[in-house]
Amino acid sequence: MASQKILIYGGKGALGSFLVNFFKAKNWWVASVDLAPNEEAHANIAIKNTTSWTEQEKEIVTAVEETLNGEKLDAILCVAGGWAGGNAASKDLVKNCDLMWKQSVWSSVLAAEIASKHLKDGGFLQLTGAQPALQGTAGMLGYGMAKAAVHQFVKGLGAENSGLPANSTALAILPVTLDTPNNRKFMANADFTSWTTLEHVAELLLQWSLGQNRPASGSLVQLVTKDSKTEQIVC
Amino acid sequence: MASQKILIYGGKGALGSFLVNFFKAKNWWVASVDLAPNEEAHANIAIKNTTSWTEQEKEIVTAVEETLNGEKLDAILCVAGGWAGGNAASKDLVKNCDLMWKQSVWSSVLAAEIASKHLKDGGFLQLTGAQPALQGTAGMLGYGMAKAAVHQFVKGLGAENSGLPANSTALAILPVTLDTPNNRKFMANADFTSWTTLEHVAELLLQWSLGQNRPASGSLVQLVTKDSKTEQIVC
Repeated sequence: MASQKILIYGGKGALGSFLVNFFKAKNWWVASVDLAPNEEAHANIAIKNTTSWTEQEKEIVTAVEETLNGEKLDAILCVAGGWAGGNAASKDLVKNCDLMWKQSVWSSVLAAEIASKHLKDGGFLQLTGAQPALQGTAGMLGYGMAKAAVHQFVKGLGAENSGLPANSTALAILPVTLDTPNNRKFMANADFTSWTTLEHVAELLLQWSLGQNRPASGSLVQLVTKDSKTEQIVC
Repeated sequence: MASQKILIYGGKGALGSFLVNFFKAKNWWVASVDLAPNEEAHANIAIKNTTSWTEQEKEIVTAVEETLNGEKLDAILCVAGGWAGGNAASKDLVKNCDLMWKQSVWSSVLAAEIASKHLKDGGFLQLTGAQPALQGTAGMLGYGMAKAAVHQFVKGLGAENSGLPANSTALAILPVTLDTPNNRKFMANADFTSWTTLEHVAELLLQWSLGQNRPASGSLVQLVTKDSKTEQIVC
Protein backbone atom coordinates (compact mmCIF):
# COMPACT_ATOMS: atom_id res chain seq x y z
CA MET A 1 0.00 0.00 0.00
CA ALA A 2 1.08 3.60 -0.65
CA SER A 3 1.73 5.74 2.40
CA GLN A 4 -1.53 7.71 2.25
CA LYS A 5 -4.91 6.10 2.03
CA ILE A 6 -8.25 7.56 1.03
CA LEU A 7 -11.75 6.18 0.63
CA ILE A 8 -14.04 7.86 -1.86
CA TYR A 9 -17.72 7.21 -1.30
CA GLY A 10 -19.41 7.65 -4.67
CA GLY A 11 -16.15 7.01 -6.53
CA LYS A 12 -17.88 6.18 -9.82
CA GLY A 13 -19.82 9.47 -10.13
CA ALA A 14 -18.61 12.53 -12.03
CA LEU A 15 -16.81 14.16 -9.10
CA GLY A 16 -15.94 10.81 -7.52
CA SER A 17 -14.22 9.47 -10.66
CA PHE A 18 -12.29 12.69 -10.97
CA LEU A 19 -11.14 12.38 -7.36
CA VAL A 20 -10.13 8.74 -7.76
CA ASN A 21 -7.85 9.67 -10.66
CA PHE A 22 -6.60 12.82 -8.97
CA PHE A 23 -5.55 11.19 -5.71
CA LYS A 24 -4.14 8.17 -7.52
CA ALA A 25 -1.95 10.49 -9.61
CA LYS A 26 -0.68 11.98 -6.33
CA ASN A 27 0.35 8.48 -5.31
CA TRP A 28 -2.42 7.87 -2.77
CA TRP A 29 -3.96 4.44 -2.28
CA VAL A 30 -7.60 4.89 -3.28
CA ALA A 31 -10.68 2.81 -2.42
CA SER A 32 -14.02 3.50 -4.10
CA VAL A 33 -17.47 2.71 -2.71
CA ASP A 34 -20.22 2.85 -5.33
CA LEU A 35 -22.90 0.86 -7.10
CA ALA A 36 -20.48 0.13 -9.96
CA PRO A 37 -16.74 -0.47 -9.62
CA ASN A 38 -14.23 2.18 -10.67
CA GLU A 39 -11.47 0.25 -12.43
CA GLU A 40 -8.96 3.01 -11.66
CA ALA A 41 -9.31 2.53 -7.89
CA HIS A 42 -6.97 0.23 -5.95
CA ALA A 43 -9.97 -1.34 -4.23
CA ASN A 44 -13.72 -1.34 -4.85
CA ILE A 45 -16.57 -1.86 -2.45
CA ALA A 46 -19.91 -2.52 -4.14
CA ILE A 47 -23.17 -1.13 -2.83
CA LYS A 48 -25.69 -3.92 -3.38
CA ASN A 49 -28.74 -3.55 -1.15
CA THR A 50 -30.57 -0.29 -1.86
CA THR A 51 -33.83 -1.10 -0.08
CA SER A 52 -32.75 -1.60 3.57
CA TRP A 53 -30.35 0.86 5.13
CA THR A 54 -29.32 -1.49 7.93
CA GLU A 55 -28.68 -4.32 5.43
CA GLN A 56 -26.63 -1.98 3.25
CA GLU A 57 -24.71 -0.93 6.37
CA LYS A 58 -23.78 -4.54 7.17
CA GLU A 59 -22.54 -5.19 3.65
CA ILE A 60 -20.51 -2.00 3.36
CA VAL A 61 -19.00 -2.07 6.85
CA THR A 62 -17.95 -5.71 6.48
CA ALA A 63 -16.44 -5.11 3.04
CA VAL A 64 -14.54 -2.02 4.21
CA GLU A 65 -13.14 -3.93 7.19
CA GLU A 66 -11.96 -6.75 4.95
CA THR A 67 -10.45 -4.33 2.46
CA LEU A 68 -8.55 -2.27 5.02
CA ASN A 69 -7.47 -5.28 7.07
CA GLY A 70 -6.47 -3.16 10.06
CA GLU A 71 -4.94 -0.25 8.12
CA LYS A 72 -6.22 3.25 8.84
CA LEU A 73 -7.47 5.88 6.39
CA ASP A 74 -6.07 9.40 6.13
CA ALA A 75 -9.24 10.73 4.57
CA ILE A 76 -12.79 9.80 3.60
CA LEU A 77 -14.57 11.85 0.95
CA CYS A 78 -18.29 11.34 0.42
CA VAL A 79 -19.35 12.76 -2.93
CA ALA A 80 -22.30 10.44 -3.55
CA GLY A 81 -25.55 12.20 -4.33
CA GLY A 82 -28.04 13.16 -6.96
CA TRP A 83 -30.70 15.69 -7.80
CA ALA A 84 -34.46 15.61 -8.27
CA GLY A 85 -37.01 18.42 -8.25
CA GLY A 86 -40.64 18.55 -7.15
CA ASN A 87 -42.93 20.55 -4.86
CA ALA A 88 -45.67 19.26 -2.53
CA ALA A 89 -48.06 18.68 -5.43
CA SER A 90 -45.57 16.66 -7.49
CA LYS A 91 -46.76 13.15 -8.22
CA ASP A 92 -43.23 11.95 -7.48
CA LEU A 93 -42.88 13.78 -4.15
CA VAL A 94 -42.36 10.74 -1.95
CA LYS A 95 -40.43 8.77 -4.56
CA ASN A 96 -37.96 11.61 -4.99
CA CYS A 97 -37.69 12.39 -1.27
CA ASP A 98 -36.86 8.72 -0.75
CA LEU A 99 -34.25 8.69 -3.51
CA MET A 100 -32.59 11.91 -2.36
CA TRP A 101 -32.39 10.56 1.19
CA LYS A 102 -30.79 7.32 0.05
CA GLN A 103 -28.31 9.00 -2.27
CA SER A 104 -27.16 11.79 0.02
CA VAL A 105 -27.90 10.69 3.58
CA TRP A 106 -27.38 6.92 3.58
CA SER A 107 -23.99 7.54 2.01
CA SER A 108 -23.04 10.37 4.40
CA VAL A 109 -23.99 8.42 7.50
CA LEU A 110 -22.15 5.31 6.34
CA ALA A 111 -19.08 7.42 5.52
CA ALA A 112 -19.20 8.78 9.09
CA GLU A 113 -19.58 5.29 10.50
CA ILE A 114 -16.52 4.18 8.50
CA ALA A 115 -14.70 7.27 9.83
CA SER A 116 -15.57 6.39 13.43
CA LYS A 117 -14.02 2.94 12.91
CA HIS A 118 -11.19 3.40 10.39
CA LEU A 119 -10.12 7.05 10.14
CA LYS A 120 -6.76 8.00 11.68
CA ASP A 121 -6.63 10.39 14.60
CA GLY A 122 -6.36 13.80 12.98
CA GLY A 123 -7.94 12.45 9.79
CA PHE A 124 -10.34 14.16 7.42
CA LEU A 125 -14.00 13.43 6.60
CA GLN A 126 -15.77 15.42 3.89
CA LEU A 127 -19.46 15.25 3.10
CA THR A 128 -21.42 17.02 0.38
CA GLY A 129 -24.16 19.54 1.11
CA ALA A 130 -25.63 22.18 -1.19
CA GLN A 131 -25.52 25.95 -1.05
CA PRO A 132 -29.16 26.35 -2.21
CA ALA A 133 -30.36 24.35 0.82
CA LEU A 134 -29.27 27.19 3.12
CA GLN A 135 -32.61 28.75 2.09
CA GLY A 136 -36.04 27.25 1.45
CA THR A 137 -36.22 24.91 -1.54
CA ALA A 138 -39.90 24.89 -2.57
CA GLY A 139 -39.25 23.47 -6.06
CA MET A 140 -36.96 20.67 -4.91
CA LEU A 141 -38.30 19.67 -1.50
CA GLY A 142 -36.70 16.23 -1.28
CA TYR A 143 -33.29 17.44 -2.39
CA GLY A 144 -33.40 20.34 0.07
CA MET A 145 -34.39 18.09 2.96
CA ALA A 146 -31.62 15.59 2.29
CA LYS A 147 -29.00 18.32 2.00
CA ALA A 148 -30.26 20.15 5.12
CA ALA A 149 -29.95 16.82 6.94
CA VAL A 150 -26.34 16.51 5.77
CA HIS A 151 -25.65 20.04 7.00
CA GLN A 152 -27.13 19.21 10.40
CA PHE A 153 -25.14 15.97 10.51
CA VAL A 154 -21.86 17.81 9.86
CA LYS A 155 -22.59 20.35 12.58
CA GLY A 156 -23.08 17.46 15.00
CA LEU A 157 -19.99 15.61 13.80
CA GLY A 158 -17.94 18.74 14.40
CA ALA A 159 -19.06 19.07 18.02
CA GLU A 160 -17.49 17.37 21.04
CA ASN A 161 -18.17 13.70 21.66
CA SER A 162 -19.45 13.14 18.16
CA GLY A 163 -17.83 9.70 18.02
CA LEU A 164 -15.17 10.57 15.42
CA PRO A 165 -11.45 9.90 16.05
CA ALA A 166 -9.52 12.48 18.10
CA ASN A 167 -8.51 15.68 16.32
CA SER A 168 -10.22 14.66 13.11
CA THR A 169 -12.05 17.21 10.98
CA ALA A 170 -15.53 16.70 9.51
CA LEU A 171 -16.89 19.30 7.13
CA ALA A 172 -19.21 19.64 4.16
CA ILE A 173 -18.63 21.38 0.89
CA LEU A 174 -21.72 23.25 -0.35
CA PRO A 175 -21.40 23.72 -4.10
CA VAL A 176 -23.91 25.69 -6.15
CA THR A 177 -23.32 23.92 -9.48
CA LEU A 178 -20.38 21.71 -10.38
CA ASP A 179 -18.99 21.79 -13.90
CA THR A 180 -19.69 18.17 -14.86
CA PRO A 181 -20.44 16.69 -18.29
CA ASN A 182 -24.05 15.94 -17.26
CA ASN A 183 -24.65 19.48 -16.03
CA ARG A 184 -23.23 20.82 -19.31
CA LYS A 185 -25.56 18.47 -21.20
CA PHE A 186 -28.76 19.33 -19.26
CA MET A 187 -28.05 23.05 -18.73
CA ALA A 188 -26.35 23.79 -22.02
CA ASN A 189 -27.28 27.48 -21.99
CA ALA A 190 -26.13 28.23 -18.43
CA ASP A 191 -23.29 30.57 -17.53
CA PHE A 192 -20.43 28.10 -17.03
CA THR A 193 -18.25 30.81 -15.47
CA SER A 194 -20.46 30.53 -12.35
CA TRP A 195 -19.86 26.78 -12.08
CA THR A 196 -17.17 25.25 -9.90
CA THR A 197 -14.64 23.03 -11.65
CA LEU A 198 -13.93 19.51 -10.42
CA GLU A 199 -10.22 20.36 -10.43
CA HIS A 200 -10.77 23.21 -7.98
CA VAL A 201 -12.75 20.93 -5.66
CA ALA A 202 -10.07 18.24 -5.93
CA GLU A 203 -7.26 20.67 -5.08
CA LEU A 204 -9.15 21.86 -1.99
CA LEU A 205 -9.89 18.33 -0.84
CA LEU A 206 -6.25 17.33 -1.31
CA GLN A 207 -5.08 20.24 0.84
CA TRP A 208 -7.58 19.41 3.57
CA SER A 209 -6.76 15.69 3.37
CA LEU A 210 -3.09 16.63 3.93
CA GLY A 211 -4.12 18.70 6.97
CA GLN A 212 -3.44 22.04 5.28
CA ASN A 213 -5.75 25.08 5.67
CA ARG A 214 -8.59 23.03 7.07
CA PRO A 215 -11.66 24.98 8.17
CA ALA A 216 -12.88 24.12 11.67
CA SER A 217 -14.57 20.78 12.13
CA GLY A 218 -18.33 21.12 11.68
CA SER A 219 -17.97 23.81 9.00
CA LEU A 220 -20.25 24.21 6.03
CA VAL A 221 -17.99 25.49 3.25
CA GLN A 222 -19.90 27.20 0.46
CA LEU A 223 -18.15 27.12 -2.89
CA VAL A 224 -19.30 30.21 -4.75
CA THR A 225 -17.91 30.71 -8.25
CA LYS A 226 -18.05 33.97 -10.20
CA ASP A 227 -16.15 34.79 -13.37
CA SER A 228 -14.53 31.35 -13.07
CA LYS A 229 -13.06 32.19 -9.66
CA THR A 230 -14.21 30.20 -6.64
CA GLU A 231 -14.49 31.68 -3.20
CA GLN A 232 -14.99 29.70 0.02
CA ILE A 233 -17.57 31.06 2.41
CA VAL A 234 -17.48 29.18 5.71
CA CYS A 235 -20.61 29.05 7.83
CA MET B 1 -69.94 15.71 9.58
CA ALA B 2 -69.35 18.72 11.83
CA SER B 3 -68.59 22.01 10.14
CA GLN B 4 -64.85 21.97 10.78
CA LYS B 5 -62.60 19.07 9.86
CA ILE B 6 -59.12 18.24 11.02
CA LEU B 7 -56.72 15.40 10.34
CA ILE B 8 -54.20 14.54 13.03
CA TYR B 9 -51.18 12.60 11.81
CA GLY B 10 -49.88 10.66 14.80
CA GLY B 11 -53.25 10.82 16.56
CA LYS B 12 -52.49 7.93 18.91
CA GLY B 13 -49.31 9.42 20.43
CA ALA B 14 -49.18 11.50 23.61
CA LEU B 15 -49.69 14.88 21.94
CA GLY B 16 -51.80 13.39 19.16
CA SER B 17 -54.28 11.76 21.54
CA PHE B 18 -54.56 14.99 23.49
CA LEU B 19 -55.30 16.88 20.27
CA VAL B 20 -57.92 14.37 19.12
CA ASN B 21 -59.82 14.83 22.38
CA PHE B 22 -59.29 18.58 22.43
CA PHE B 23 -60.59 19.26 18.93
CA LYS B 24 -63.42 16.78 19.36
CA ALA B 25 -64.51 18.63 22.50
CA LYS B 26 -64.59 21.83 20.41
CA ASN B 27 -66.98 20.05 18.06
CA TRP B 28 -64.54 19.44 15.20
CA TRP B 29 -64.72 16.31 13.06
CA VAL B 30 -61.40 14.56 13.72
CA ALA B 31 -59.54 11.93 11.68
CA SER B 32 -56.47 10.18 13.08
CA VAL B 33 -53.64 8.62 11.09
CA ASP B 34 -51.44 6.31 13.14
CA LEU B 35 -50.19 2.74 13.53
CA ALA B 36 -52.98 2.03 16.02
CA PRO B 37 -56.52 3.43 15.89
CA ASN B 38 -57.64 6.15 18.30
CA GLU B 39 -61.16 5.16 19.34
CA GLU B 40 -62.01 8.76 20.16
CA ALA B 41 -61.50 9.91 16.57
CA HIS B 42 -64.40 10.07 14.10
CA ALA B 43 -62.28 8.27 11.51
CA ASN B 44 -59.06 6.27 11.63
CA ILE B 45 -56.51 5.62 8.94
CA ALA B 46 -54.07 2.85 9.75
CA ILE B 47 -50.38 3.01 8.82
CA LYS B 48 -49.52 -0.53 7.75
CA ASN B 49 -46.41 -0.66 5.58
CA THR B 50 -43.39 0.69 7.45
CA THR B 51 -40.67 -0.63 5.13
CA SER B 52 -41.44 1.09 1.80
CA TRP B 53 -42.25 4.78 1.80
CA THR B 54 -43.92 4.69 -1.62
CA GLU B 55 -46.06 1.71 -0.59
CA GLN B 56 -47.05 3.48 2.63
CA GLU B 57 -47.89 6.55 0.56
CA LYS B 58 -50.28 4.57 -1.66
CA GLU B 59 -52.07 3.07 1.33
CA ILE B 60 -52.43 6.33 3.24
CA VAL B 61 -53.38 8.52 0.29
CA THR B 62 -56.01 6.03 -0.88
CA ALA B 63 -57.47 5.65 2.61
CA VAL B 64 -57.60 9.41 3.19
CA GLU B 65 -59.37 9.93 -0.15
CA GLU B 66 -61.97 7.31 0.71
CA THR B 67 -62.48 8.72 4.19
CA LEU B 68 -62.90 12.33 3.06
CA ASN B 69 -65.01 11.41 0.04
CA GLY B 70 -64.57 14.83 -1.56
CA GLU B 71 -64.81 16.91 1.62
CA LYS B 72 -61.99 19.34 2.38
CA LEU B 73 -59.97 19.69 5.59
CA ASP B 74 -59.60 22.92 7.56
CA ALA B 75 -56.39 21.81 9.17
CA ILE B 76 -53.79 19.03 9.20
CA LEU B 77 -51.59 18.63 12.25
CA CYS B 78 -48.60 16.28 12.07
CA VAL B 79 -47.40 15.40 15.53
CA ALA B 80 -45.93 11.98 14.72
CA GLY B 81 -42.34 11.49 15.80
CA GLY B 82 -40.03 9.91 18.30
CA TRP B 83 -36.62 10.28 19.85
CA ALA B 84 -33.40 8.27 19.79
CA GLY B 85 -29.86 9.27 20.73
CA GLY B 86 -26.49 8.20 19.40
CA ASN B 87 -23.29 9.70 17.99
CA ALA B 88 -21.21 8.48 15.03
CA ALA B 89 -19.69 5.65 17.08
CA SER B 90 -23.06 4.34 18.28
CA LYS B 91 -23.69 0.76 17.23
CA ASP B 92 -27.27 1.78 16.44
CA LEU B 93 -26.36 4.83 14.35
CA VAL B 94 -27.96 3.70 11.10
CA LYS B 95 -30.86 1.90 12.76
CA ASN B 96 -31.78 5.03 14.69
CA CYS B 97 -31.23 7.42 11.77
CA ASP B 98 -33.58 5.22 9.77
CA LEU B 99 -36.21 5.16 12.52
CA MET B 100 -36.06 8.92 13.10
CA TRP B 101 -36.44 9.54 9.37
CA LYS B 102 -39.47 7.29 9.13
CA GLN B 103 -41.15 8.67 12.24
CA SER B 104 -40.62 12.38 11.57
CA VAL B 105 -40.07 12.78 7.84
CA TRP B 106 -42.26 10.12 6.21
CA SER B 107 -45.14 11.45 8.29
CA SER B 108 -44.40 15.13 7.54
CA VAL B 109 -44.09 14.58 3.80
CA LEU B 110 -47.30 12.51 3.66
CA ALA B 111 -49.11 15.18 5.71
CA ALA B 112 -47.98 17.76 3.13
CA GLU B 113 -49.10 15.53 0.27
CA ILE B 114 -52.53 15.19 1.91
CA ALA B 115 -52.55 18.98 2.32
CA SER B 116 -51.78 19.50 -1.36
CA LYS B 117 -54.79 17.34 -2.26
CA HIS B 118 -57.35 17.87 0.50
CA LEU B 119 -56.65 21.06 2.48
CA LYS B 120 -59.01 23.99 1.94
CA ASP B 121 -57.71 27.19 0.41
CA GLY B 122 -56.55 29.22 3.39
CA GLY B 123 -56.15 26.04 5.45
CA PHE B 124 -53.51 25.21 8.03
CA LEU B 125 -50.72 22.60 8.01
CA GLN B 126 -48.56 22.13 11.09
CA LEU B 127 -45.46 19.94 11.28
CA THR B 128 -43.23 19.20 14.26
CA GLY B 129 -39.59 20.21 14.40
CA ALA B 130 -37.35 20.54 17.44
CA GLN B 131 -35.70 23.55 19.01
CA PRO B 132 -32.44 21.68 19.79
CA ALA B 133 -31.96 20.93 16.07
CA LEU B 134 -31.36 24.63 15.43
CA GLN B 135 -27.82 23.84 16.65
CA GLY B 136 -25.56 20.82 16.16
CA THR B 137 -26.82 17.60 17.74
CA ALA B 138 -23.71 15.44 18.25
CA GLY B 139 -25.34 13.10 20.77
CA MET B 140 -28.49 12.51 18.76
CA LEU B 141 -27.37 12.63 15.14
CA GLY B 142 -30.34 10.82 13.60
CA TYR B 143 -32.92 12.82 15.51
CA GLY B 144 -31.20 16.10 14.61
CA MET B 145 -31.03 15.20 10.92
CA ALA B 146 -34.70 14.26 10.73
CA LYS B 147 -35.79 17.44 12.51
CA ALA B 148 -33.47 19.65 10.41
CA ALA B 149 -35.06 18.04 7.35
CA VAL B 150 -38.52 18.94 8.66
CA HIS B 151 -37.37 22.53 9.22
CA GLN B 152 -36.06 22.70 5.66
CA PHE B 153 -39.29 21.19 4.36
CA VAL B 154 -41.40 23.81 6.14
CA LYS B 155 -39.28 26.64 4.77
CA GLY B 156 -39.89 25.26 1.28
CA LEU B 157 -43.63 24.75 1.88
CA GLY B 158 -43.93 28.36 2.98
CA ALA B 159 -42.37 29.71 -0.21
CA GLU B 160 -44.18 30.47 -3.46
CA ASN B 161 -45.21 27.60 -5.74
CA SER B 162 -44.74 25.03 -3.02
CA GLY B 163 -47.76 23.07 -4.24
CA LEU B 164 -50.00 23.80 -1.23
CA PRO B 165 -53.51 25.26 -1.66
CA ALA B 166 -53.81 29.05 -2.12
CA ASN B 167 -53.42 31.16 1.02
CA SER B 168 -52.74 28.17 3.22
CA THR B 169 -50.21 28.36 6.04
CA ALA B 170 -47.55 25.72 6.71
CA LEU B 171 -45.42 26.04 9.81
CA ALA B 172 -43.56 23.91 12.32
CA ILE B 173 -43.64 24.05 16.07
CA LEU B 174 -40.21 23.53 17.63
CA PRO B 175 -40.69 22.36 21.21
CA VAL B 176 -37.81 21.82 23.61
CA THR B 177 -39.51 19.25 25.85
CA LEU B 178 -43.21 18.48 25.99
CA ASP B 179 -44.80 17.62 29.32
CA THR B 180 -45.95 14.08 28.50
CA PRO B 181 -46.35 11.07 30.78
CA ASN B 182 -43.40 9.31 29.11
CA ASN B 183 -41.11 12.30 29.52
CA ARG B 184 -42.12 12.52 33.22
CA LYS B 185 -41.34 8.81 33.56
CA PHE B 186 -37.93 8.88 31.85
CA MET B 187 -36.77 12.29 33.11
CA ALA B 188 -38.31 12.19 36.57
CA ASN B 189 -35.80 14.62 38.05
CA ALA B 190 -36.07 17.29 35.37
CA ASP B 191 -37.40 20.80 35.94
CA PHE B 192 -41.00 20.43 34.76
CA THR B 193 -41.50 24.21 34.82
CA SER B 194 -39.32 24.37 31.68
CA TRP B 195 -41.55 21.88 29.83
CA THR B 196 -44.36 22.90 27.52
CA THR B 197 -47.82 21.58 28.40
CA LEU B 198 -49.92 19.75 25.83
CA GLU B 199 -52.79 22.09 26.64
CA HIS B 200 -50.73 25.11 25.68
CA VAL B 201 -49.77 23.48 22.38
CA ALA B 202 -53.40 22.52 21.72
CA GLU B 203 -54.66 26.07 22.39
CA LEU B 204 -52.10 27.48 19.96
CA LEU B 205 -52.94 24.93 17.28
CA LEU B 206 -56.66 25.63 17.67
CA GLN B 207 -56.10 29.37 17.20
CA TRP B 208 -53.99 28.79 14.11
CA SER B 209 -56.43 26.22 12.73
CA LEU B 210 -59.16 28.86 13.09
CA GLY B 211 -56.97 31.35 11.19
CA GLN B 212 -56.22 33.48 14.25
CA ASN B 213 -52.76 34.94 14.99
CA ARG B 214 -51.04 32.67 12.49
CA PRO B 215 -47.31 33.26 12.03
CA ALA B 216 -46.23 33.61 8.40
CA SER B 217 -46.22 30.46 6.30
CA GLY B 218 -42.80 28.80 6.41
CA SER B 219 -42.19 29.85 10.03
CA LEU B 220 -40.33 27.77 12.57
CA VAL B 221 -42.06 28.56 15.87
CA GLN B 222 -39.90 27.75 18.88
CA LEU B 223 -41.87 27.02 22.03
CA VAL B 224 -39.64 28.05 24.92
CA THR B 225 -41.03 27.50 28.39
CA LYS B 226 -39.63 29.09 31.56
CA ASP B 227 -41.30 29.17 34.97
CA SER B 228 -44.28 27.41 33.37
CA LYS B 229 -44.78 30.23 30.88
CA THR B 230 -44.35 29.52 27.19
CA GLU B 231 -43.05 32.06 24.75
CA GLN B 232 -43.14 31.73 20.95
CA ILE B 233 -39.96 32.67 19.14
CA VAL B 234 -40.53 32.72 15.40
CA CYS B 235 -37.58 32.13 13.08
